[in-house]
Amino acid sequence: MSGRQMAAEMAEQPHALAALAGRRHELIATIKAVLPDELGGIVLVARGSSDHAAVYGRYVLELASGRPVALAAPSLHTLYGATVDYGGYLAVAVSQSGRTPEITTVLRAAQEAGATGIAITNEHDSPLAAAADAVIDLQVGDERAVPATKTFTGQVAAFALLAEALGPVPWGADDWARLPQAVARVLDDAAPARDMAAAIGDAPGMVVVGRGFCYGIALEIALKLKETCGLLAQGYSAADLRHGPIGVVERDFPVLALVTAGPTEQDMRELIGQLERRGADVHVARPGGDGELAEALATIPLVVRGQQVAHALALWRGLDPDTPEGLSKVTPTT
Amino acid sequence: MSGRQMAAEMAEQPHALAALAGRRHELIATIKAVLPDELGGIVLVARGSSDHAAVYGRYVLELASGRPVALAAPSLHTLYGATVDYGGYLAVAVSQSGRTPEITTVLRAAQEAGATGIAITNEHDSPLAAAADAVIDLQVGDERAVPATKTFTGQVAAFALLAEALGPVPWGADDWARLPQAVARVLDDAAPARDMAAAIGDAPGMVVVGRGFCYGIALEIALKLKETCGLLAQGYSAADLRHGPIGVVERDFPVLALVTAGPTEQDMRELIGQLERRGADVHVARPGGDGELAEALATIPLVVRGQQVAHALALWRGLDPDTPEGLSKVTPTT
Repeated sequence: MSGRQMAAEMAEQPHALAALAGRRHELIATIKAVLPDELGGIVLVARGSSDHAAVYGRYVLELASGRPVALAAPSLHTLYGATVDYGGYLAVAVSQSGRTPEITTVLRAAQEAGATGIAITNEHDSPLAAAADAVIDLQVGDERAVPATKTFTGQVAAFALLAEALGPVPWGADDWARLPQAVARVLDDAAPARDMAAAIGDAPGMVVVGRGFCYGIALEIALKLKETCGLLAQGYSAADLRHGPIGVVERDFPVLALVTAGPTEQDMRELIGQLERRGADVHVARPGGDGELAEALATIPLVVRGQQVAHALALWRGLDPDTPEGLSKVTPTT
Repeated sequence: MSGRQMAAEMAEQPHALAALAGRRHELIATIKAVLPDELGGIVLVARGSSDHAAVYGRYVLELASGRPVALAAPSLHTLYGATVDYGGYLAVAVSQSGRTPEITTVLRAAQEAGATGIAITNEHDSPLAAAADAVIDLQVGDERAVPATKTFTGQVAAFALLAEALGPVPWGADDWARLPQAVARVLDDAAPARDMAAAIGDAPGMVVVGRGFCYGIALEIALKLKETCGLLAQGYSAADLRHGPIGVVERDFPVLALVTAGPTEQDMRELIGQLERRGADVHVARPGGDGELAEALATIPLVVRGQQVAHALALWRGLDPDTPEGLSKVTPTT
């Protein structure tokens, strides 16, 4: 039992995010140089943690660009032989390793059908980076623990930068400047995560819930908990949870609710009331720097809080979060 | 403990589907009459079971139309005030009751931004139907049990008809003619579902997995199990499951694998091998009429098998599937 690798990589996040923020103008210029003259729409291609970053991206890119954003259905291209016209589209493929064959295949198919291809990856010499018209190279350093941590927060930051390249957004330079410190404050304050882990204990399952910008974050925290703790953690948007899945929430059922200052706060508060009336054991996570940092970037310290809970719960359960049984760093789906 | 209402509504499905198939030409003509001259793309708006039908629709509509299909992020419109250009788009809103305010609000927003709006609903005098430019009225009769059954299979059939209105598809009149009988064969053969329910027993969680056309079906069967049995059932695509969530699958963990003859069969067989090597208790569901019915319609008898498993497991656990605790038929999210 160790978890030292995951903890070390989590600790690198303030520095890695500061470095990405420092390359903000350069990365935005890289993206702008390849954008289609008239943007028809955007399609995102990803799996696993990267797909949860893409769910976040789906919101900020549509908000910024005013064009519809779709998450690709890879099997339409890899198995069903679909022919889709992507003229004027931006296709954004996301893969930490750049080595999942399916992701590169779908990016190439979209490019051949007219799309401009952008890769978000931590491996600038990967097949995915080679296929793309432009690369957002995360440069967060090697990630060795199986659960993605610094590559995930790097991907979220990359989507926020991509949104800035596409149109007006409700955040700016001041938020980027505050972000590393907000993440560092979460890392320096591990007690809330340890308390949550102890409260979750050996529960067979739990729910992680957010809304809007926090929906993809809820999916990602649930995946971290599944990977590191073998726990049946499910991520939901507040609205989706109410449409049926709330049926699994009984007395003492653990729920992690992600709350940020912003347009979704009222809806989340109402949901928390509804969950508490069902007797759920609701833990509220708010981002470090909440209210000081625009909501879209405040999601990043919130991710880090979730990483801490997953790490602490794995140790509580006597598991090694660095190398979950039967999982590997690159998953070769086709 | 009863479950009679849900069982009665399940039993109406062959008749309801035959009636929809009988209106095939009329419904396709209704859709064609409102289609934009040049289709820019498609956006789908739904929650809960209807959203799982939309995930199915996402595949068949993109395959048929050759245009990208997106699932809407409602909060962008209801909470974040996004302005998205839907000129040339088809917006398809799906709601059994037509009375979830959020769904009507998002359909209207898309229409005001240039989209042609289609409603798929079982209530032709609902606010949603009133807002749409054209309505696919399911006419499957009142559904009183809380878990959607005949309205869900009706929605899947409606998406298949909508795809036919948009372009060439790999199914036709013969498949529609065989569909009611294939569903009836599943209903007449309840033993496999009872056996699966007994094998799942009091497990705290399970996974339902499919791929491609079966992905939305896996999500729906998992939701049925959650609603009726309070079981932590999670639906995945085969590829998504491999990217991390497979970590929760330990020895004797129950898995329901949906397998259809078609492009995804090989991938599903490989996944089943991988799950069995982890010691999972894998149950394979194949549709009635498998191989005789094109894959896109074979998903419908597969849904019915999943309904049977949920119904049987609820009774095994001493629960009433008709009225799960704390759930209601119309969920008023905004």
